[in-house]
Amino acid sequence: MNSPEQPLLPQINSPEDLRKLDLPQLKILAQEIRDYMLAVVSVNGGHLAPNLGVVELTLALHTVFDTPSDQLIWDVGHQCYAHKIITGRRDQFPTLRQAGGLAGFPKREESPYDAFDTGHSSTSLSLATAFAASRDLQGQKHHVVAVIGDGALTGGMAYEALNHLGDLQTGLTIVLNDNEMSIDQNVGAMSNYLVRMRTDPRYGKTKKDLEQLLRKIPRVGPQVAKTIDRFKDSLKHLLVPGMLFEEMGLVYLGPVDGHDIAALRRVLKRAKQMDKPVLVHVLTRKGQGYAPARENPDKFHGIGPFDLASGQVKENGSGLTYTQVFGETLAALAAADPKIISLTAAMSAGAGLDKFTNIYPERAFDVGIAEQHALTFAAGLAACGFRPVAAIYSSFLQRGYDQILHDICLPNLPVTLAIDRAGIVGEDGPTHQGIFDLSYLGNLPNLVLMAPKDEQELQQMLATALAYPGPAALRYPRDKGRGLSLLKDPQPLPVGRAEILREGKDLTIFALGSMVYPALEAAEILARQEIEATVLNARFVKPLDQKTLLQTVKTTGCLLTVEENVQSGGFGQACLTALQGKVQARVEIAALANQFVPQGKRAELLEQAGLTGQKLAQRALLLLGGRG
Amino acid sequence: MNSPEQPLLPQINSPEDLRKLDLPQLKILAQEIRDYMLAVVSVNGGHLAPNLGVVELTLALHTVFDTPSDQLIWDVGHQCYAHKIITGRRDQFPTLRQAGGLAGFPKREESPYDAFDTGHSSTSLSLATAFAASRDLQGQKHHVVAVIGDGALTGGMAYEALNHLGDLQTGLTIVLNDNEMSIDQNVGAMSNYLVRMRTDPRYGKTKKDLEQLLRKIPRVGPQVAKTIDRFKDSLKHLLVPGMLFEEMGLVYLGPVDGHDIAALRRVLKRAKQMDKPVLVHVLTRKGQGYAPARENPDKFHGIGPFDLASGQVKENGSGLTYTQVFGETLAALAAADPKIISLTAAMSAGAGLDKFTNIYPERAFDVGIAEQHALTFAAGLAACGFRPVAAIYSSFLQRGYDQILHDICLPNLPVTLAIDRAGIVGEDGPTHQGIFDLSYLGNLPNLVLMAPKDEQELQQMLATALAYPGPAALRYPRDKGRGLSLLKDPQPLPVGRAEILREGKDLTIFALGSMVYPALEAAEILARQEIEATVLNARFVKPLDQKTLLQTVKTTGCLLTVEENVQSGGFGQACLTALQGKVQARVEIAALANQFVPQGKRAELLEQAGLTGQKLAQRALLLLGGRG
Repeated sequence: MNSPEQPLLPQINSPEDLRKLDLPQLKILAQEIRDYMLAVVSVNGGHLAPNLGVVELTLALHTVFDTPSDQLIWDVGHQCYAHKIITGRRDQFPTLRQAGGLAGFPKREESPYDAFDTGHSSTSLSLATAFAASRDLQGQKHHVVAVIGDGALTGGMAYEALNHLGDLQTGLTIVLNDNEMSIDQNVGAMSNYLVRMRTDPRYGKTKKDLEQLLRKIPRVGPQVAKTIDRFKDSLKHLLVPGMLFEEMGLVYLGPVDGHDIAALRRVLKRAKQMDKPVLVHVLTRKGQGYAPARENPDKFHGIGPFDLASGQVKENGSGLTYTQVFGETLAALAAADPKIISLTAAMSAGAGLDKFTNIYPERAFDVGIAEQHALTFAAGLAACGFRPVAAIYSSFLQRGYDQILHDICLPNLPVTLAIDRAGIVGEDGPTHQGIFDLSYLGNLPNLVLMAPKDEQELQQMLATALAYPGPAALRYPRDKGRGLSLLKDPQPLPVGRAEILREGKDLTIFALGSMVYPALEAAEILARQEIEATVLNARFVKPLDQKTLLQTVKTTGCLLTVEENVQSGGFGQACLTALQGKVQARVEIAALANQFVPQGKRAELLEQAGLTGQKLAQRALLLLGGRG
Repeated sequence: MNSPEQPLLPQINSPEDLRKLDLPQLKILAQEIRDYMLAVVSVNGGHLAPNLGVVELTLALHTVFDTPSDQLIWDVGHQCYAHKIITGRRDQFPTLRQAGGLAGFPKREESPYDAFDTGHSSTSLSLATAFAASRDLQGQKHHVVAVIGDGALTGGMAYEALNHLGDLQTGLTIVLNDNEMSIDQNVGAMSNYLVRMRTDPRYGKTKKDLEQLLRKIPRVGPQVAKTIDRFKDSLKHLLVPGMLFEEMGLVYLGPVDGHDIAALRRVLKRAKQMDKPVLVHVLTRKGQGYAPARENPDKFHGIGPFDLASGQVKENGSGLTYTQVFGETLAALAAADPKIISLTAAMSAGAGLDKFTNIYPERAFDVGIAEQHALTFAAGLAACGFRPVAAIYSSFLQRGYDQILHDICLPNLPVTLAIDRAGIVGEDGPTHQGIFDLSYLGNLPNLVLMAPKDEQELQQMLATALAYPGPAALRYPRDKGRGLSLLKDPQPLPVGRAEILREGKDLTIFALGSMVYPALEAAEILARQEIEATVLNARFVKPLDQKTLLQTVKTTGCLLTVEENVQSGGFGQACLTALQGKVQARVEIAALANQFVPQGKRAELLEQAGLTGQKLAQRALLLLGGRG
């Protein structure tokens, strides 16, 4: 290829071009990819640290395996930037995470190199097992590779897939991308196990150790059991790196340095030759090649625009986010109530729990990427008299639907669900939009379901949930609050009572959570046209304040409901049902359409969905116009 | 205590009484408990085989541990009969599974000995971990014990909990009740692993094996890797029973014979002394003590009333169940379409897949109790061009909500969900009622959602789903069909089109699935009072046939919707929304109340919910009466 002075990246239009490079060129290319990633992500934001960590791994995979004939699945998919750049999407890369641009996660519609759409954690082993089974059924011969992080490996469905795969015993390569942390510091027995494998200096050496071992074997006497125990303890870590995986029916290879392309290629070639499930244990460093991200991989896991030289995040206005308000308030309430426990599924910082965790480490549980366990664990704590607060993003809470139903709502236990990232989340796109929670939670008996209009109400709702004797959930958006000062001593709200914000005779606007202020704005616009709207802040989806709703709609005869959730099964439908048979009224439900929402800026997506004050006012006019 | 001639069981009013018995007496008591269980379950039906398998274990647990101060959690809970009988519920036991009687699963409201309500699989380790953490936080000292089957251990959330527990390192005893099968023959790498531990004759012997091992250790040469491999293979199973669990941070004890009370007590006492997580591997036999159940534990897992002498199930009328019709039809359709794959999460027989599995073993996948993996595995197969059919009970499908949303509906893949046990399931009670599926699936974009009125329509809907280019679900009840002969060549139905069964000017009854025939019955009753109803068979909840609905309601001005699902987020609300702003009509939604449904006979529970022809007719009259 060209002289080393010329940049290599502009010549890489597909993995075919990669495969022509020699090792020194691949190393140069890795640096060019990192520079390009940094340039784009510092402007657009994105999952920087995990992507910096897998550049060499990406190059090794695409040069050892014959993609896209060989199928490559990235777990979660937040580490696919290098993969996208070298699979024909280099020039589109600056559109990353923007409306209409490249997705931050693999998408089949973007490229044949994206074997499946991902976004949520721990799905890759199920998909890879399916691809391998499908290949075998069709008598095909290609390879299937899944790349899964040590964090994603804590998710139960990864284990379910391993259990199946270890039984199927078909050829499949699992690359365990062990970067010493998931999004937060990784936790759990599996993580401890990987740490032992990583740090034990005995791995790699062998002869000496075996001799040592032989000397250590005791002469067994009558106390056989104890001897066996000692024997096991002294030998097991020595003899059997990856034993846990081997017992599950996988061949274990590694650990190998994930930034050494030559070593990676050697071990991947070995895996490729085997006709069985192989786990290749690769050690990478998040943020590799960019000092600020190396030093602070947590902050740089998913990050907004930042200054490339300093690593300083570009501040997006002042004021606290809902996440921060939740975190501050929980920590404050916990001072007075020793029964409060915080729970997170590997999102301690993201969900605002850092402060609580620092002050009350013994009352803070991070269970890994394991929403199912987190929720049933919460149920167990509640049954013992504690007040657990599980802070989980709306789209990830989907993983725990049965646990909420079966272990929390059915026994009617006082677990608080703090549902962050509810509604439109923006650039992370359709896998992460939190637009279904009102629908999947709204049908659950015993659950109180709330959404705050602003940060003070979030505080009050957290207090409400913690005072309530059964399960309660509050959902709030991925957004800044309205800049209000925080309440020092937030008090519980009356459960099931709406708030009347404005009274008018022509129309009732019944709005929920993030839509309350847009509803007030709509009312202002309407007032300029001498249309007087009653504006109600619903506060509670469940129990719904039917009394207040019916009273006002009896007067106005006209109802516009507003929510940041899909229409189907949501707040508006619950209101419509409440009116049915009781009050005759024109009703319009303003909600998100019953479809997935693409990536884009939150404000723009809300505008497109008609969920702004201006658009709501127009909708109200249409509704009223139809009155005649 | 008394002479051995007198029965012991009448004297056992709590575990306190048990603790006074000596070993021979405990053995006699075990037999008495079995006889009692057989007498009751042969009349009431129930989970016989698993309960016969744990009688000795139950006695050992309650005599070694100080229940209820020590907390005992039964995973799934379908093996709690002996536990109930000896914890003060002996005399109520004949009411097992009947309306108002003892539940077939642990219930906190029944007894302080029931530490938590269970029903679904794999929750016990999360609960036990919570109980242990709670104990530690409160400075308490009691013991916590979880009993989990080898089948339940394939569920991902069990692994999530093990991961957490292995990290917490607090005292907790896990009894692995290894009965060589879950409900169906157990599958997966974990199961294979347990089989190796069970069957390896080397366990228990030690000295001889160690000597053998010493002789086997090779002199290592330059080819160290190969030597190590050989070394590992020859030694690992010998040296490290339970190694997999030990690597996860648990102490492993066992395996021990689960029908030897003395041996069980010894190992449980040892576990009790340890201040760490301990896994006690207990080998039991499902159906122990009753030959028909021993020989056919699958059939006797959950069984209706049967003849005690012969083990013959008392036939409940003639005709096929919906489950059987599904199984027959799937097998028939698969003959013509080699792309059809069947999937089950450990419910092959229960979901009607035995025939398919026998004819097409290579196209039938049982992934263990692992709904999450099953669904994403299905998504992967669909992406490869197959037509996977996942047959899962409605209440267990709740476990896979995120996978349906994120891996099936978002990429719009043609997976068929065959949702068995939808609606009221009867005696298994609130954990198993399939009354939420319309609500949690109704909000999912791209999904086609159907319910058949009878067995022929089930056949047509399966054909419809298999012909549809995206995800499709059909839900059908735990019930017999109507005795119709099966269609030889079922054809797809037009998607989103309702069926007009009867036309009348006074009222529209729009009914779904199991409620179509009750709706027709209601129409007959109304006709006798000269009220003429239009009856529509909805067939599709999604897409809803809005056109037909609006047309008829425009004429009748009155709509009664009928469904076997909770009202919230269900079919009726979707109909109401469809009318809103288009047709003025009185609407009444007949559905299950928004609450959990207790155990009882299906017919009785439907009657109580007002979902019979008679009750629907009354409701229609009220609706019409209100018209004036």
